This record gives sequence, structure tokens and C-alpha cells, in this order.
Amino acid sequence: MSTSDVKLLGRCASPYVNRVQIALNVKSIKYEYLEENLSSKSSLLLNANPVKKKVPVLIHGNRSVSESLVIVQYIDEVWTSGPCILPSDSLDRAEARFWAAYIDDKWFPLATEFKLTRQEEKKLVVKQKIIEGLMLLEEVFVKCSKGKAYFGGDSIGYLDIVLGSFLSWLTAIELTSDVCFLDMTKTPVLVGWSDRFRSNDAVKNIVPGTEKVIELLNVYLKLSSTLKAYAYVFNQTI
Amino acid sequence: MSTSDVKLLGRCASPYVNRVQIALNVKSIKYEYLEENLSSKSSLLLNANPVKKKVPVLIHGNRSVSESLVIVQYIDEVWTSGPCILPSDSLDRAEARFWAAYIDDKWFPLATEFKLTRQEEKKLVVKQKIIEGLMLLEEVFVKCSKGKAYFGGDSIGYLDIVLGSFLSWLTAIELTSDVCFLDMTKTPVLVGWSDRFRSNDAVKNIVPGTEKVIELLNVYLKLSSTLKAYAYVFNQTI
Repeated sequence: MSTSDVKLLGRCASPYVNRVQIALNVKSIKYEYLEENLSSKSSLLLNANPVKKKVPVLIHGNRSVSESLVIVQYIDEVWTSGPCILPSDSLDRAEARFWAAYIDDKWFPLATEFKLTRQEEKKLVVKQKIIEGLMLLEEVFVKCSKGKAYFGGDSIGYLDIVLGSFLSWLTAIELTSDVCFLDMTKTPVLVGWSDRFRSNDAVKNIVPGTEKVIELLNVYLKLSSTLKAYAYVFNQTI
Repeated sequence: MSTSDVKLLGRCASPYVNRVQIALNVKSIKYEYLEENLSSKSSLLLNANPVKKKVPVLIHGNRSVSESLVIVQYIDEVWTSGPCILPSDSLDRAEARFWAAYIDDKWFPLATEFKLTRQEEKKLVVKQKIIEGLMLLEEVFVKCSKGKAYFGGDSIGYLDIVLGSFLSWLTAIELTSDVCFLDMTKTPVLVGWSDRFRSNDAVKNIVPGTEKVIELLNVYLKLSSTLKAYAYVFNQTI
């Protein structure tokens, strides 16, 4: 099957869509990008992902794959000639999957919670949890990278993509809340990694600018008065 | 590495632990089972899974793997001589991963919600969603099994393990609430599958009896007055 059979249904500034774009770039796969209007979803999206009706969806030939982490693993398994995205060792691969689930299910939701929490004391507790999570991920980086540039070693791997896709959103939350999560005193290694990640050729034209993300964050805040509503809007939109 | 190097830290009647036990049985791997007391967790568990401190944990040699779906994939990748658990085709594998995430993140949480919802009208809405989810999974079964006995074809595969691990809990909720989710009129194919799954050699001595699960459900209900508290207790305990 030729790479011209690859289409990606996405949405501007979605970290989950960005993951797929980065993975396709790492593997040097040409694809057609189709921007979705989430207030009027295309029939292509509704047919390809009838259960969740969400982006990203990768269409490969006449079949489709949904869910960002599932798509990234699919890309890695199908296009084996490019750099490996998941580690080649089974235990390392299991560890990468474990931490990816931690980032998506435990760590990043804290950033949403922080943004919505109004009570100052609670905000401080959540902030501390976000920083502790990053310190944990700093240890993971040291272990996985083995002194190289990325979680994946010499090139961008699974955890680089999973954590890196949230960097613009983290920066936007830092700037709009006047806090600093990722800093040189507590997580110096991750600070260096984030600079390398953002300037990597597979990434630099993909991740959204901070201004764009701040603009979107403000839209979500206007649309939602509670954490649940915010999470819903965020989830539906990005 | 010999199979005598395999240890499983588990908890009686946990569907997530059962998944790992079934996967090990499918691959005919001998292992040592160590029951955890969750009110006084062993140092082995705390060292092996310091982030989540939860079972199941598979210890293989001097390294450990946590999270049931990560462990099942690890087992499939390491012990390649037994029957395949994940489909061999990349697109089928992506599809299995998608539906596994659907079952864990969307469908089974509805069963918890049903059990805790007191308002009759809302209970009916949740019940309907559970049944609709099963009808969807019935379609997935027809597609994946290609007329054979299991989602995985002739032998138990990934989706059999993921959905099958919840069967005892679903039955316990049906019996204690006088409802029927899985029935011959709406999901006849899944009814047949559930009977075959429960009586399969790799499963029959693993899944807990309904009486045991009902006893545990009642403990959780006594411990928790809200949906959040119940989900917490459930999550921590099973």
C-alpha cells in the first residue's frame, strides 16, 4: 500500500492529533491532512470513528485507526523501515506503555484541574502534584535516554511524543496563571529535553504556538464553569 | 530466563489480576502467585510499583511490569511460542487496542455508575447505555471472531481477556439489582461466547464465583456513600 493512501483527520492545536503528525514525520510518511470542523463533523469522521466521533483518525487504504496512542503504535508496527518509536526490548516497551498511561490518565488531567481550581490552597496542592509528576518523569527520562537526547535515545520515541505533545499546553497554562512547572531547579534535564524536542525537525512545524493555545484556553474557560464542563469541552475540542 | 522466575502479585477476585492469570494460562507459563493484603501492602509491591502501588504486578526476573493491559501485551510479546493473544495483523491489533480502551474507559465504568445511582429514571438511562455497549461489542465479536468461538478466533485473545474479566462482576450486579444486561434477545452471540469463555481451561479456575463477588460488592457499598467514593474503593480494592 503506498503512503499516498494515508489520510489524517485532525484538529488544529490538538495534542492528540499532533502525536500522530509527529509519528508520521519521524517515519517520513507522506499523508494528506484533513482539518475537521468539530461543530459540524465530516461524514468521513463519523463513518471512520462512529463510536467516539473524535479526532485523530488515521485512514490507511480502506480502513481506519482511532485513538492517538493506538495510532502511534500502529504507525510504528506498519512502517518498520524508519526509526523505531517504541523501544525494541519488551520490558522497555512495557515501561514506555506504563508511563504513557500515567501521563494521559494521571499527570495531564492535573493541569486541567489546576486551571479550573479557584480556591488558592487547593491550587497550590495541585501545582505541587504537577511538579512532583514532572520530577518523576525526569527520573524516567534519565533511565530511558541513557545519556542521549530523547526518551527514545538518539531519536524521538513513544514517551517523547506522548509527553512532548502537551508542552505547548503546559506553557500556556504557566503563562496565563503566572506559575512555573518545568524549571531548571527541579527538572533541569526535562527543561533541556523540551527545548530539543520543540526544535526537532519532526516536531517544529507541528506543535502549535503558545499564543494560539492561550487563545483556545480562553475559549474553553468561557464555555465552561465547572471542572467537569471544562474537561468535557477540552476533550471534545482538542 | 526460566518461567520459575515469574511471580504475580495479585488480589482475590480482581478482574485486572484475572486478566494476567488468564494470559499466563493461555501461554502455559508456570508462575508463583502472591496474594496481596491491600490494607498492608507488601514491600515487594511497593518497590515494584511505587507510583500506583496497585496490583497486578508481574515480576519477571529482576524487573517488574504493572497495569493489566501492559502486562498482557508483555506476556504476548515475550512468550511467543504459545497461542497469540493479540491479533497478528497490525490493523486488527489496533482495533483490539481501541476496543480494549473502550471497555475499560467507557463501558465498564457504566456498571459502577449503575450500581450507585439511586434515582430510578437515571438508573434506566445508564442501564440502556450498558446494553447498547454490549450490542456494540456483539458486532465487534462477529467481526473479529469470523465465525469462530472467541474474539481471538479459535483460542482466547486480547478482547476475550479484557471483556471476559468483567463477566463475574456484571453477573453480580445483575443478580443484586434484578436486571439483565446480557440476554438472548439483544446479545445472543455474546451470551454463547460468555459461556464458552467461562468454561475454557485457561479461565475456569481463575474467575471468581458470583457469591464471592456479591460479598465484595456489598463491602464496597457499605464503605462508600457516593459514586466517587465507590469508584475509589473499587479501584483500590479489586
